[in-house]
Amino acid sequence: MTTDPAPLDFYFDFASPYAYLAAMRIDDLAAGHGRSVRWRPIMLGAAMKVTGSRPLMQIPLRSDYLRHDVVRFARRLGIPFAFPPEMPIPTLAAARAFYWLQDDEPDLARRFARAVFEAHFGRGEDIREPSQVAAIAAPLGVDGAALVAAVADPVVKDRLRAETDAAIARGVFGAPFILVDGEPFWGADRLDQVDAWLRGGW
Amino acid sequence: MTTDPAPLDFYFDFASPYAYLAAMRIDDLAAGHGRSVRWRPIMLGAAMKVTGSRPLMQIPLRSDYLRHDVVRFARRLGIPFAFPPEMPIPTLAAARAFYWLQDDEPDLARRFARAVFEAHFGRGEDIREPSQVAAIAAPLGVDGAALVAAVADPVVKDRLRAETDAAIARGVFGAPFILVDGEPFWGADRLDQVDAWLRGGW
Repeated sequence: MTTDPAPLDFYFDFASPYAYLAAMRIDDLAAGHGRSVRWRPIMLGAAMKVTGSRPLMQIPLRSDYLRHDVVRFARRLGIPFAFPPEMPIPTLAAARAFYWLQDDEPDLARRFARAVFEAHFGRGEDIREPSQVAAIAAPLGVDGAALVAAVADPVVKDRLRAETDAAIARGVFGAPFILVDGEPFWGADRLDQVDAWLRGGW
Repeated sequence: MTTDPAPLDFYFDFASPYAYLAAMRIDDLAAGHGRSVRWRPIMLGAAMKVTGSRPLMQIPLRSDYLRHDVVRFARRLGIPFAFPPEMPIPTLAAARAFYWLQDDEPDLARRFARAVFEAHFGRGEDIREPSQVAAIAAPLGVDGAALVAAVADPVVKDRLRAETDAAIARGVFGAPFILVDGEPFWGADRLDQVDAWLRGGW
């Protein structure tokens, strides 16, 4: 009996445009090496408290660079990009909805996460309200009222908090952050290194 | 009469291990596109004041990642890496010595800069004292006493300050930071993008 290799852990916050860039590539990249991906939204703000940092959009010079770089990067990857009306925004609703979906239907959860990213950064839509998240999930067959109720459920809230704490305990401090058999890679610009690592012989 | 294309601007601080990784590649990369490189050491601390950040080695989680990542990255590039006894250290002496050399002998200045990086991160030597910098420059034929005098010269000090201010005014906030005809790229992990940009058709 052979054992399937462990999935890659893909940590992200729906508020990160660089996480969006990675999200659009990571599944295909992993599949090219016979690997799957475990998507893991976290609340990046909690990690930022540990590192004493703050959103790039609030930092002089870095915010200008981000605005230029992320558009250029998306163009290079050939994926659509549009700035949402505000950046970053709280993404609790989307992250909680993800974990609510995940245990029973992991594949649906991943398709939901992609749809959220595509709405937020592919089309520049706001995604902060539970109703907005429900509208994104509706075409996937997710019941809107159930989703809105779930993101207010203390059990679901605790789950996101626990996932975030566990991520920080594993050294995750930014997004996207990818663990390949425990090997950490931070940044959308490291996906080529993830690819090389999976190829082996590094 | 044809005009040579402008050189790439390569901004760095000798204290940055990621700048070392880029420094070992940037000249060859540019040469592959018929371009030269203008090396420009700056005092990264001044840029960090603008962005409100601090050295990665002082930041929880990020320091652990850096220690792991930079060794792995150097291995991938096939270049030697050794941690200096302390990181980061003040690099005023080396940066001032660079500009002192540069106006008269730009090629010597670049070879000096590479030698400083190789000492600090290739062999893990301390480079903070003018005498240490002079010892690195000696095999290149640089007079040690003149170098030690130069790094205390107010004109040379002002030059480094002016270069740093000018870099920040151009949006430089980290190291390595590369400007290709004004197009900004931050990070050793973006050299492949610099290469693609120089190839054109992005």
